[in-house]
Amino acid sequence: MKLLVVNANTSPQVTDLVVQEARRAAQPGTEIVCATGRFGARIISTRAENAIAHHAMVELVAEHHRGCDAVLIGVSYDTGLAAVRELLPIPVVGMTEAALHSACFLGGRFGMITFDRRSEAVYREIIAGYGLTARLGALRSIQASPADMYRDPSIVEAKVVEAGQKLVEEDNVDVIIISGAAMAGMPRRVQDRLKVPAIDGVNCGTRLAEMLAAMKLPKPRSGSYAAVPEKELVDVAPAIQALYRG
Amino acid sequence: MKLLVVNANTSPQVTDLVVQEARRAAQPGTEIVCATGRFGARIISTRAENAIAHHAMVELVAEHHRGCDAVLIGVSYDTGLAAVRELLPIPVVGMTEAALHSACFLGGRFGMITFDRRSEAVYREIIAGYGLTARLGALRSIQASPADMYRDPSIVEAKVVEAGQKLVEEDNVDVIIISGAAMAGMPRRVQDRLKVPAIDGVNCGTRLAEMLAAMKLPKPRSGSYAAVPEKELVDVAPAIQALYRG
Amino acid sequence: MKLLVVNANTSPQVTDLVVQEARRAAQPGTEIVCATGRFGARIISTRAENAIAHHAMVELVAEHHRGCDAVLIGVSYDTGLAAVRELLPIPVVGMTEAALHSACFLGGRFGMITFDRRSEAVYREIIAGYGLTARLGALRSIQASPADMYRDPSIVEAKVVEAGQKLVEEDNVDVIIISGAAMAGMPRRVQDRLKVPAIDGVNCGTRLAEMLAAMKLPKPRSGSYAAVPEKELVDVAPAIQALYRG
Amino acid sequence: MKLLVVNANTSPQVTDLVVQEARRAAQPGTEIVCATGRFGARIISTRAENAIAHHAMVELVAEHHRGCDAVLIGVSYDTGLAAVRELLPIPVVGMTEAALHSACFLGGRFGMITFDRRSEAVYREIIAGYGLTARLGALRSIQASPADMYRDPSIVEAKVVEAGQKLVEEDNVDVIIISGAAMAGMPRRVQDRLKVPAIDGVNCGTRLAEMLAAMKLPKPRSGSYAAVPEKELVDVAPAIQALYRG
Amino acid sequence: MKLLVVNANTSPQVTDLVVQEARRAAQPGTEIVCATGRFGARIISTRAENAIAHHAMVELVAEHHRGCDAVLIGVSYDTGLAAVRELLPIPVVGMTEAALHSACFLGGRFGMITFDRRSEAVYREIIAGYGLTARLGALRSIQASPADMYRDPSIVEAKVVEAGQKLVEEDNVDVIIISGAAMAGMPRRVQDRLKVPAIDGVNCGTRLAEMLAAMKLPKPRSGSYAAVPEKELVDVAPAIQALYRG
Amino acid sequence: MKLLVVNANTSPQVTDLVVQEARRAAQPGTEIVCATGRFGARIISTRAENAIAHHAMVELVAEHHRGCDAVLIGVSYDTGLAAVRELLPIPVVGMTEAALHSACFLGGRFGMITFDRRSEAVYREIIAGYGLTARLGALRSIQASPADMYRDPSIVEAKVVEAGQKLVEEDNVDVIIISGAAMAGMPRRVQDRLKVPAIDGVNCGTRLAEMLAAMKLPKPRSGSYAAVPEKELVDVAPAIQALYRG
Repeated sequence: MKLLVVNANTSPQVTDLVVQEARRAAQPGTEIVCATGRFGARIISTRAENAIAHHAMVELVAEHHRGCDAVLIGVSYDTGLAAVRELLPIPVVGMTEAALHSACFLGGRFGMITFDRRSEAVYREIIAGYGLTARLGALRSIQASPADMYRDPSIVEAKVVEAGQKLVEEDNVDVIIISGAAMAGMPRRVQDRLKVPAIDGVNCGTRLAEMLAAMKLPKPRSGSYAAVPEKELVDVAPAIQALYRG
Repeated sequence: MKLLVVNANTSPQVTDLVVQEARRAAQPGTEIVCATGRFGARIISTRAENAIAHHAMVELVAEHHRGCDAVLIGVSYDTGLAAVRELLPIPVVGMTEAALHSACFLGGRFGMITFDRRSEAVYREIIAGYGLTARLGALRSIQASPADMYRDPSIVEAKVVEAGQKLVEEDNVDVIIISGAAMAGMPRRVQDRLKVPAIDGVNCGTRLAEMLAAMKLPKPRSGSYAAVPEKELVDVAPAIQALYRG
Repeated sequence: MKLLVVNANTSPQVTDLVVQEARRAAQPGTEIVCATGRFGARIISTRAENAIAHHAMVELVAEHHRGCDAVLIGVSYDTGLAAVRELLPIPVVGMTEAALHSACFLGGRFGMITFDRRSEAVYREIIAGYGLTARLGALRSIQASPADMYRDPSIVEAKVVEAGQKLVEEDNVDVIIISGAAMAGMPRRVQDRLKVPAIDGVNCGTRLAEMLAAMKLPKPRSGSYAAVPEKELVDVAPAIQALYRG
Repeated sequence: MKLLVVNANTSPQVTDLVVQEARRAAQPGTEIVCATGRFGARIISTRAENAIAHHAMVELVAEHHRGCDAVLIGVSYDTGLAAVRELLPIPVVGMTEAALHSACFLGGRFGMITFDRRSEAVYREIIAGYGLTARLGALRSIQASPADMYRDPSIVEAKVVEAGQKLVEEDNVDVIIISGAAMAGMPRRVQDRLKVPAIDGVNCGTRLAEMLAAMKLPKPRSGSYAAVPEKELVDVAPAIQALYRG
Repeated sequence: MKLLVVNANTSPQVTDLVVQEARRAAQPGTEIVCATGRFGARIISTRAENAIAHHAMVELVAEHHRGCDAVLIGVSYDTGLAAVRELLPIPVVGMTEAALHSACFLGGRFGMITFDRRSEAVYREIIAGYGLTARLGALRSIQASPADMYRDPSIVEAKVVEAGQKLVEEDNVDVIIISGAAMAGMPRRVQDRLKVPAIDGVNCGTRLAEMLAAMKLPKPRSGSYAAVPEKELVDVAPAIQALYRG
Repeated sequence: MKLLVVNANTSPQVTDLVVQEARRAAQPGTEIVCATGRFGARIISTRAENAIAHHAMVELVAEHHRGCDAVLIGVSYDTGLAAVRELLPIPVVGMTEAALHSACFLGGRFGMITFDRRSEAVYREIIAGYGLTARLGALRSIQASPADMYRDPSIVEAKVVEAGQKLVEEDNVDVIIISGAAMAGMPRRVQDRLKVPAIDGVNCGTRLAEMLAAMKLPKPRSGSYAAVPEKELVDVAPAIQALYRG
């Protein structure tokens, strides 16, 4: 089984982090290949950067999906998820989508820790978009960047633990999702300081992508996720155009 | 990895069907053990039968979970799911819960086929209980029983296909869930007559239980899914009492 | 009119408390009979104890409902309510269901006081199950047990009053529901220290059961609350089996 | 116990019908007094007529509530309900509110029959306003007026039965609410032709008003249902002004 | 274009304030005419006062709408909005409705500042009635009255700024609505002390009324907003009756 | 006032249609400038095309917004709306967002006509994303393409009218939104054959953009719509990069 992990951020370091965690989560027989964004933000944080990355994501999967059995969207806004799911004949999983649904198997309400208060609103909208608002206990943000992670992960971890404890003590959540592609693997490092399970989207998403690939379900032939029709697009990457030729 | 499949119906035939599909879905290294309800309905259909089966389910998992790595609730009302999840230190997955969340990775809205119109209301409540009402496109029921399945599965299959086609053509769903423990495996048999993926809870649930077991997450130590306190219950199976002794 | 109050807890003391409050609420012509759980927890608090009590509840009503005109579920998780409502030809009221709907006649949003933080999540799910989440202002829990009540009710009452005042001052609720079968009657004792009406489920439920019995509505002959079909169950109490013979 | 039934329609015939049904539903010791709208529509049907009736309702209860123990709003749009509930120190029940909450004790989802398609939208908004949309199975309207009722009730009844049967067969509801003050009593006349319980708001509301009055709960002293402050209004009925003097 | 601003409060001073702000917001070619409530509260705050004002509003628009191209409901509870919209052949906009929908164009979630904690509940219901609860970040109330405004606006402004800052810092809203007809114009005065846009309903509503009038859409001829049928009402203002004659 | 109409479709003909309708809706003093997508689909219909267009939209507004007072997203999926709103210091309006909120002023529930059944799901998600699901009466799709429009608009119009009549007769909606940038202006042509107002997003959006520009509100300095931080993006259009330099 070959899993394509796509990072629409333009930072190979983030891709490395994501792939590393994906490898750890993957089954022995799973081969992981990856692709990093060609254009756009190094670390997507604003809505505009995310919009640009929608295109980058479509281009990346168009160029790299051949021969793969499933795709993991390795950006925590699940950038372009619906588009890629529609476009490809193989299962596609968003890392945050994966964490959210996985969390639902671990308790009644989940909490989420985000990195930077600004993104809270975006995550709330993402959760609502999946129809999972009723399962959201609380969102809490800490102030930390990937750069902080490189400098001294222990400081970031301490902040995550503090936010996590509040989610448990004050918000009464049953499970904690730690968001952010650059934070992949963090749950393992802070788990023993938290009273409820902590998960991340790369770990969950890798496993769910493997699972869906193994199910060998057919591509829908009806509805808004059926294969795209034959059509000529203007000035897009040849690989995208190729997908519009069936 | 050892998966306990629990059928709180008192029909070993249904257990056999469920286990057979679970085996088909499971990874090579997964050992599947099963348990069948000791008391209650042969095939749970009414609310009252389901209430009785809550107790049966708790008793069954108390007696059979030792040495297991995960539990699959093999009754399509996900009987006793929250209770068993609270009670055990290992992952627990409900078969319908599994199908519902899996469906969310395959499109926007799912449809569900139920066997007997009476159960539609119960499934609608189950879906609402998981907070997934916004993802429900439509519920359609056919009239068929496990007995019909033994007699002539092709007739039941034809009804399922007809209902499934309506879910696609009229209700515009992206994926179809075929409910019912006794219908485990049906999706494979009708898939080529349906335009969107068809799934069942035993297949999805087996895979999700494997996945969650592999994640080796800790049991919550806070909230309503933390381990039950030490306590003496009156006149319950010794195995249940044992779980209340830590 | 004869009202069956069923306490699926296995504590006759709790039954006594519930019956005492039911008697106080009942009309002069109402005869109150009661039944106490034969097996399970003395005071149901966890999800697992509640699951066991589903069976206990069905068994109790099967054995005791003959000659009764209505049933009050005297457990504040409304254990087995839908099952009992389906099973019997007479009105069935859950005590928490009764308090919730009664509260809706007294203002816009209600608050609820629960005994033990762990149960908050369960009550939130119960409220959602009745479709009344939009009417919930806030849930607040205090730490108190039935044992605390026996020892020194005034301490528990003080905690209830404090939580109630916060519900009024901070959460702006219009009415307060005090949950818990063992707390039946508490609202009367703390009412004069609270600025909004305080109610409990036993009081409301007794009255609603009387009301529904007086309406003499027919049992549904369609849908998921119609009488259960003829069917043989395995190893259940003869009284349950009798209900499946019409 | 003295119950004030207020009909903000300006038709004494409708008041008579409502009072007649209220008497039938009331307990022996309940005295029923009534008041009919002084100005506005004979039968409120449009939104504008309902707006005018808000004032009429406030005026009526201000003038007639002295000495009463509870009020039943005998207009099926529950005209002025929140205002009257705020204004008076006694329980106030809306007839449709009463039917909706009562229906919740009789099954999972209710259906409603309205008289004139135009009002469907208003009822849908009323149900949403009570937070009960999740319990609404379906609304169906027939074309019939109070005048039709006087002329030949059997024709109206036949239409109600037909709509009710569709609610059961097609919409799978567990209980049917027949709306309309002028249709009070109709459920009794058509019940034996319907497979699920049928109820009306006057009958339910009378009983709920009795119940709430018997509970002797205090008037809220906080929130938006607390007594109105001392204040001078311009050119309103002296009875209204009197309520603003405490 | 001629805009009728209707203030169902009986305070000409409030009308003046509203008209002043409407003039400021209006386009040069817009003529603004106004009408003040004939009966009822000087400043509507309770639910009962609002109920009385429903009638006043219908009477006012009936008497003053001839020759006008649109109506702005200049009461922040949007008193009688649906009724007036149904009754008249011209566009009708509620001031709070206008602010709420305008806010949606300025960010994801809005906050609202209300004057007097009691009204918070009413505004929450109004927002829910428009189906916009998901866009509500938070409601915060300050204690201030129109009289306070006349005495020392700077004190009220300081309270508004403080509440607004909390909405931004703690509740993370993207835009702030300052409620209250008597507070029209306040946003302009406090805007530079707030980090997100602040708006009021009179300003937004004037512009939306102009916009809708310019669209020259037809009056619905179907549904619950179609023109009212010919009908005789009892003892209402002749202008109201005239609207029921087509 | 200068309004930028951005069409992320790569068809100048569609831009022409949109601009033509925008001109018709605009006030005399409004100057309309436009921009057409440089890359991507001629007419965006699939999710993947929409993802690509997110980038195109950001690029277009970055290149063309200088000197403009507001932006209208002239693609009916409101492509990139949140991103553009965040990115620019001027008001931004999505054409479908505009139609949806405008519709709310015209009645209780709106219906929507879409061109091609596949897009129904996308529109349902868009409406949910704005939190307006409760106002959606029904979605109906017809089969028609922009090419059909060029060939024989009267055939397309007849289909629109038929769908619209069903929305009125069967779904009881109060207003109809005709979706699709290429259908701008259609409502005017079919209005007299429909019983309720019909609107389109270009017309409404032009007016709302004018209105918001005239309000001269400040750009948020907090939250997820505040200006983007200084940051270097990789290989994006210089105009985009310029926006990240303040």
